[in-house]
Amino acid sequence: MALRSAEEYKQGLRDDRAVYILGKKVADVTADPYLTVGVETAAYDFHLAHDEEKRDLAVMKDAESGEDVSSYFEVPDYPEAVAKRHELIKAACYHTDGALPFVKDVGTDIINGLSAVARGMGNDTYRDRIENYRKYCARNDLSMSGAVTDVKGDRSKGPSEQDSPDYYLRIVDETDDEIVVSGAKAHITASAYTDEIIVIPTRAMTEADADYAVAFAIPAATKGITQICRPSFRAEDSYHFPTPRPKRGHIEALVIFDEVRVPKDRVFLLREWRAAQYVAYAFSAFHRFTAVTYKIPILEYLTGLGMLAADANGVSKASNVRDRFVSMINYTETTKALARAALSEPQNFGESGLYVANCLTSNIAKLHFASNFHEFVRNVQDIAGGLLVTQPTYQDWQHDELQPYLKRYMGGAGDFDAEARLKLMSTMHHVFASDFAGWHEVCTIHAEGSFATQNMMLLAEAPAEMYKSKAREIVGLSA
Amino acid sequence: MALRSAEEYKQGLRDDRAVYILGKKVADVTADPYLTVGVETAAYDFHLAHDEEKRDLAVMKDAESGEDVSSYFEVPDYPEAVAKRHELIKAACYHTDGALPFVKDVGTDIINGLSAVARGMGNDTYRDRIENYRKYCARNDLSMSGAVTDVKGDRSKGPSEQDSPDYYLRIVDETDDEIVVSGAKAHITASAYTDEIIVIPTRAMTEADADYAVAFAIPAATKGITQICRPSFRAEDSYHFPTPRPKRGHIEALVIFDEVRVPKDRVFLLREWRAAQYVAYAFSAFHRFTAVTYKIPILEYLTGLGMLAADANGVSKASNVRDRFVSMINYTETTKALARAALSEPQNFGESGLYVANCLTSNIAKLHFASNFHEFVRNVQDIAGGLLVTQPTYQDWQHDELQPYLKRYMGGAGDFDAEARLKLMSTMHHVFASDFAGWHEVCTIHAEGSFATQNMMLLAEAPAEMYKSKAREIVGLSA
Amino acid sequence: MALRSAEEYKQGLRDDRAVYILGKKVADVTADPYLTVGVETAAYDFHLAHDEEKRDLAVMKDAESGEDVSSYFEVPDYPEAVAKRHELIKAACYHTDGALPFVKDVGTDIINGLSAVARGMGNDTYRDRIENYRKYCARNDLSMSGAVTDVKGDRSKGPSEQDSPDYYLRIVDETDDEIVVSGAKAHITASAYTDEIIVIPTRAMTEADADYAVAFAIPAATKGITQICRPSFRAEDSYHFPTPRPKRGHIEALVIFDEVRVPKDRVFLLREWRAAQYVAYAFSAFHRFTAVTYKIPILEYLTGLGMLAADANGVSKASNVRDRFVSMINYTETTKALARAALSEPQNFGESGLYVANCLTSNIAKLHFASNFHEFVRNVQDIAGGLLVTQPTYQDWQHDELQPYLKRYMGGAGDFDAEARLKLMSTMHHVFASDFAGWHEVCTIHAEGSFATQNMMLLAEAPAEMYKSKAREIVGLSA
Amino acid sequence: MALRSAEEYKQGLRDDRAVYILGKKVADVTADPYLTVGVETAAYDFHLAHDEEKRDLAVMKDAESGEDVSSYFEVPDYPEAVAKRHELIKAACYHTDGALPFVKDVGTDIINGLSAVARGMGNDTYRDRIENYRKYCARNDLSMSGAVTDVKGDRSKGPSEQDSPDYYLRIVDETDDEIVVSGAKAHITASAYTDEIIVIPTRAMTEADADYAVAFAIPAATKGITQICRPSFRAEDSYHFPTPRPKRGHIEALVIFDEVRVPKDRVFLLREWRAAQYVAYAFSAFHRFTAVTYKIPILEYLTGLGMLAADANGVSKASNVRDRFVSMINYTETTKALARAALSEPQNFGESGLYVANCLTSNIAKLHFASNFHEFVRNVQDIAGGLLVTQPTYQDWQHDELQPYLKRYMGGAGDFDAEARLKLMSTMHHVFASDFAGWHEVCTIHAEGSFATQNMMLLAEAPAEMYKSKAREIVGLSA
Repeated sequence: MALRSAEEYKQGLRDDRAVYILGKKVADVTADPYLTVGVETAAYDFHLAHDEEKRDLAVMKDAESGEDVSSYFEVPDYPEAVAKRHELIKAACYHTDGALPFVKDVGTDIINGLSAVARGMGNDTYRDRIENYRKYCARNDLSMSGAVTDVKGDRSKGPSEQDSPDYYLRIVDETDDEIVVSGAKAHITASAYTDEIIVIPTRAMTEADADYAVAFAIPAATKGITQICRPSFRAEDSYHFPTPRPKRGHIEALVIFDEVRVPKDRVFLLREWRAAQYVAYAFSAFHRFTAVTYKIPILEYLTGLGMLAADANGVSKASNVRDRFVSMINYTETTKALARAALSEPQNFGESGLYVANCLTSNIAKLHFASNFHEFVRNVQDIAGGLLVTQPTYQDWQHDELQPYLKRYMGGAGDFDAEARLKLMSTMHHVFASDFAGWHEVCTIHAEGSFATQNMMLLAEAPAEMYKSKAREIVGLSA
Repeated sequence: MALRSAEEYKQGLRDDRAVYILGKKVADVTADPYLTVGVETAAYDFHLAHDEEKRDLAVMKDAESGEDVSSYFEVPDYPEAVAKRHELIKAACYHTDGALPFVKDVGTDIINGLSAVARGMGNDTYRDRIENYRKYCARNDLSMSGAVTDVKGDRSKGPSEQDSPDYYLRIVDETDDEIVVSGAKAHITASAYTDEIIVIPTRAMTEADADYAVAFAIPAATKGITQICRPSFRAEDSYHFPTPRPKRGHIEALVIFDEVRVPKDRVFLLREWRAAQYVAYAFSAFHRFTAVTYKIPILEYLTGLGMLAADANGVSKASNVRDRFVSMINYTETTKALARAALSEPQNFGESGLYVANCLTSNIAKLHFASNFHEFVRNVQDIAGGLLVTQPTYQDWQHDELQPYLKRYMGGAGDFDAEARLKLMSTMHHVFASDFAGWHEVCTIHAEGSFATQNMMLLAEAPAEMYKSKAREIVGLSA
Repeated sequence: MALRSAEEYKQGLRDDRAVYILGKKVADVTADPYLTVGVETAAYDFHLAHDEEKRDLAVMKDAESGEDVSSYFEVPDYPEAVAKRHELIKAACYHTDGALPFVKDVGTDIINGLSAVARGMGNDTYRDRIENYRKYCARNDLSMSGAVTDVKGDRSKGPSEQDSPDYYLRIVDETDDEIVVSGAKAHITASAYTDEIIVIPTRAMTEADADYAVAFAIPAATKGITQICRPSFRAEDSYHFPTPRPKRGHIEALVIFDEVRVPKDRVFLLREWRAAQYVAYAFSAFHRFTAVTYKIPILEYLTGLGMLAADANGVSKASNVRDRFVSMINYTETTKALARAALSEPQNFGESGLYVANCLTSNIAKLHFASNFHEFVRNVQDIAGGLLVTQPTYQDWQHDELQPYLKRYMGGAGDFDAEARLKLMSTMHHVFASDFAGWHEVCTIHAEGSFATQNMMLLAEAPAEMYKSKAREIVGLSA
Repeated sequence: MALRSAEEYKQGLRDDRAVYILGKKVADVTADPYLTVGVETAAYDFHLAHDEEKRDLAVMKDAESGEDVSSYFEVPDYPEAVAKRHELIKAACYHTDGALPFVKDVGTDIINGLSAVARGMGNDTYRDRIENYRKYCARNDLSMSGAVTDVKGDRSKGPSEQDSPDYYLRIVDETDDEIVVSGAKAHITASAYTDEIIVIPTRAMTEADADYAVAFAIPAATKGITQICRPSFRAEDSYHFPTPRPKRGHIEALVIFDEVRVPKDRVFLLREWRAAQYVAYAFSAFHRFTAVTYKIPILEYLTGLGMLAADANGVSKASNVRDRFVSMINYTETTKALARAALSEPQNFGESGLYVANCLTSNIAKLHFASNFHEFVRNVQDIAGGLLVTQPTYQDWQHDELQPYLKRYMGGAGDFDAEARLKLMSTMHHVFASDFAGWHEVCTIHAEGSFATQNMMLLAEAPAEMYKSKAREIVGLSA
């Protein structure tokens, strides 16, 4: 099968999937006013392969069949694959104004993680299954989402210790050919508009948790799967000035599995509870660098908005504003530099033969952008001023009696007349002070792992023994 | 006239005022779905005087007429007045869940500021006018807003240096009895639903700016005034779970003055450009402590939400979460302690005989809460988790097929069943991750003066010479 | 006995005490070049009572005998006692350039703590003993130090769990009239030059730790006590320019108790292990506010030095330097405001009838100054420039051939000629970049409890249930 | 001439140089107790070329003569030269326990900077002079220091605006073959023990400052040069336990030029005032990355010390201590990652054909380590505890009666007996709480440019227009 067009991708989503949003069932996810934003954002992963300029980056030959497939599906079994993937994802994000198309990257990050674990476990069955699944997705040019985080109930307790057995997804039945699973995965980005959902465990498990140690892939339209979506922005929004580019963004779902049947050749972990944590870790090792990558275009853009606000307000030369610029630029460029550093030392993940960006540095990059984003927002809000939240709306602008007043009073400095300034402030409200801005703040913290997880991993990955042994040597303490 | 009831206050707003919101003219501000939230919040300033428990705090005798008037109108000509007003405002805020009723405090803060300046200038005319205006408002039990911030155009330039003369409000004509003013004031809280608007300059001026040096009071329904309002939250919102208390909040307006005629007995500054900055400073000296005061109830409430989220998620005993608690509590309690410190040393403002809370300490308190709020938000978002923005909505909860799933999967720890947890997350979304949250972040920075202004004032108010003279003495340098 | 003079205090120190410094036994602590600095600093606690201006603050009548005694010994059984003591300590510190005389405050803080605990326990024997001891010290006008922190060995283990029984001070024998104790207390300030040492436990204990649960007072010259002192500055120092005031500072000791016999009427806790933690907590409740108090003069002085450095360098008007000023002043004045707030709400400690400054606010004040001091130092070092550490020394200044060069090249801005600038930099080196500066940084963190302890106490003292119950009410959750 | 041995280097320093320390003239800098520490540290730049393992890194062939010369002198006219130099400097620093040998790197950084400027100016005379000087130093295997910072007087004024003409080094006379210069350069590291001193301007200049726009090289022993040195540590120090490695460190001098004659073929800038700032900037572009490089070994070592202190105290598993580890490691590894990022994108400096590490990223790396070092120190001091400054000294340890006490009481956790723990604390006092620690804090801020300079350069180097143009495009504003 050839590389699909964006239209073919959309056509593929018009199936029996059970998707709800705001209390209503969605008949066609490509037509819902919220979900269509996500669908169009995702579609660029399909546009990309048909874009002449990006083709070299986006398309490769399937090693066996020789057919054209998406480069996302490449097996990263050589160090340079890391930089190549970085460029691919960055190109996709630049196109979508920072909003990662998402429907091929997270899925292949999970495939890579599962493959690395299977290789690490020496489990050829799982390795073959996951590599066959990779080929299947590549050759059918499918979109995929990743369902990792369980609903978790009381987070101080493990899966089998909860008051209810339902707080982590689990195997409720098994036949020779199939397993049956129930449970719910939370915060699942884009699953409402991907062909496939890949499910993996979210944490370390004990022997008592064996039924919870399960990984598999399943079409999103499978019977028993119900998705409850939550918008991250307002579709009905008429406050904001229209922009030349379509609105970009994604929609998360709570994905409920109610006795869903999974064929065993799509099962990649089955009660091997000792491996559960390693699967989660491997996924995050691959996916964290994807996150670091997609931050670059968005931070450049957000920094630019902040600087334009200063121009519009006539304060770009004020010393306090220049201090804000320094802080904003430092934040953005440090993120970029840490990404470059991470890819300058690719790492053979767990000696699996698959390469990831340097884990410690990727982790530091993620901690950097997650820890300092709120300060960045504060800086921009400080520069933009109260107009960020008190600006007249696009409806006011369209009103015959009000527009003359707005033209008279809303002008700014330099080339910012009232309309330009209100347009700028309108976009900045969306990005820095709206529901969407809140969603962005929370994602920056929680997507790809919380602070607590990052800190734990940083301690695990850092060369602590090397530091200490140097210090022992200099002080004169026996090793 | 007796103390008005909330109903009488609302009745008084049904006049000819020209108020627009989202591109439409509002016939009755007490009936508009957005503005009514502000009106009801403001109404508590009227409820208060009729609340038996708060009466001692809220009502005083008019010194001349002996009639009952609101305590907000007290002349603060003795040190203890500061603490009394602090208790009054705090009580009002506790009632409105932290959202300051606002329509008597800011107005009397301006009246106090103008009175202090007139006393400082030795200008008996202005002093009599402002004190008469105070009595007028008190005896008619009026609500007032304050219009301070001009639209400003290019902020690197003064009023008379702008490309357009319209970027600061100015006197465009004058007769024996009246002045005529044009201009626009931005970010004016609650003016759409106050009886009166008091206008003062926002900055220092030069001789060339004399026409811009003007202060006065005017009924909101005066001909020539057009208000363009901007919601700070979504009225149409059906995402959120209903709460037992009404929604609270305020609405800002761009207030346009188009050749508005002002009788001279309501003019408190008329081209005395040298005094313009002092008026702005005096107002902020009085108002800043109001801001410090109203932060206390809201921060206690927000801290509580964050701690409940930890309970709901079962993470209250995790060491990383306890670190977040320490940071959140430290933020909240430092704000409270700085408020106590500011009132423990009331200050005779500019030797005017009117007392304010200690200016330097109030300033420090404001800087404290404004500088650290985004980190506080980050901490709460970190504790609350992704559910803060991916939670199923109230519409989902009401859906027959979805509710059983939500009950099964959305339960948390302890006594947080699915409904309690979703209710909590619903309120938390509103407060920490919505348009309203963005508005709150921006207000925390910009209301009552930006960082740059606060820093400048801190330098001006601090006892720098005392520090240096001590240091000189100890080092042994001549003074 | 009358209030002693400073000379009488010094005379009293010339006894058999076993004090070592830098590997040598000290014959007379008032004559050792290091210890004499501490002795002279401490002596101001005796000067104070003879200073006509301070007498009202420093002297009170003994309730029973009517004789004049030091106000330090007042029983704080009324709320205003807190503010009075604050003023007393502040006056002492202003005199000693910020270096707290120390030899009456810490001792009476412990006496107050032990008295509050005895009252809380309802233990009249201990209460009488400690109050008698208070009178004894008052009437003999003694100086006292407090020995709290044990050497601790492996801090992850309790006293009885250590590899060695010696890591916490313990009772090794007991007779009808005496106990015998062995152990070592670390970081004991001023004990080398106080008449008395008061010993209390440093942490919570278990039943197995009963022998370690002991509190008592003992003369410093008692047989079996050996003190190993460590200078916090260089006595031999000829780098620095002479200053008009004597050098101030204190010396810590490791105080070793080797089978020291203690009469039982000086024992205030004897194996009541459950009370051990409460004694430590009570002491810190009283002492923490002493620390907050003595920080005020020192921070004002340090801020002044930083501002003078800017004057000397001609950079006081540079925007980046003014930002540093804002940060420095904010740090200093926030500390002062938190002190005022703490004393504006004195607290009846554990319902003992003895008053302390508000515990939560004192704790916040301590956390504030300890958390931000290094940033303050960084700011001053940034302003002062490299000369802080590369400045020519006083020896260079005294050299005939070098002085002309220094005069020619070392001049600064304004009235800072070369000599004034070098004098300033000389003091600043001592305070911001020397052994003493390192000692000061470490003390700021660790004196009066580490960050970990403060954080734990903040969580314990904060009104967390109040926050949560407000939030529950507003959200609509049952309490 | 062959590559010199360390001994030959030292022999070369025994000349007529006028060096003073602590008010005394030094007869032989290799014999002075302070300066010898610097000399031995510097000597490793000579050891290096004779170390078989490092030879490939340290030695290259002179392109013309074919003789072996130090790799420091390489002309960096190809991108990979940057990484090579990074490895060379890192190797040197690892050997000297983090204390950069210094006497070849800073000099060649200046040579590279001057060469790049000459190339940029198209000034072949200067280019030839500086390249000839490079060859001269290489073939004679000389050591060099760089004299950049003038004493500056009132820093708000330029060279010619000062009250005294002496506050910046200047040309006081000129003949056909020579110039004569007077002035003083401050904070000059290692100049007391280098063969050569290279002098460049420190700032932008105006036409009036032409006499101050001068760059040249001169032997340190030249008539008219007087150096007043200041120790950064205590040579007489017997507090500290001996360590297996020699003490490392450098000594700064105030270098006074009193009518010093400089032959014109050693003059690289002569009144071209427009180029003065570019020379300073070019030097810092080359040298800043040297600084970033040498931080790596020292930060690894300091991090190790902090972690060992936790081991010694038995607190390595405490959650608050692990948080400190996270912060310390993050600081260290971010510095390392930024260094890697900077070298992954070498930059053709000002199109001169000479390569430097990426300027923006190097600048960010420098800002990173300078901004966060004090927090790092605070973290280590927090972990280490009060013993950092109250530890018994090596003299106490050597005392027969005290050692048994110390052995009994000073033991820590794990394998840290009393001696190991005291040794560790002794080194940590030197590094984290002594005169040397103060010197280190100040150098971290001020060496290679202050915060203000770094911020200014960050703004200049960042791709601000790219950010803004992206934002314009997305918002829909014309470019």
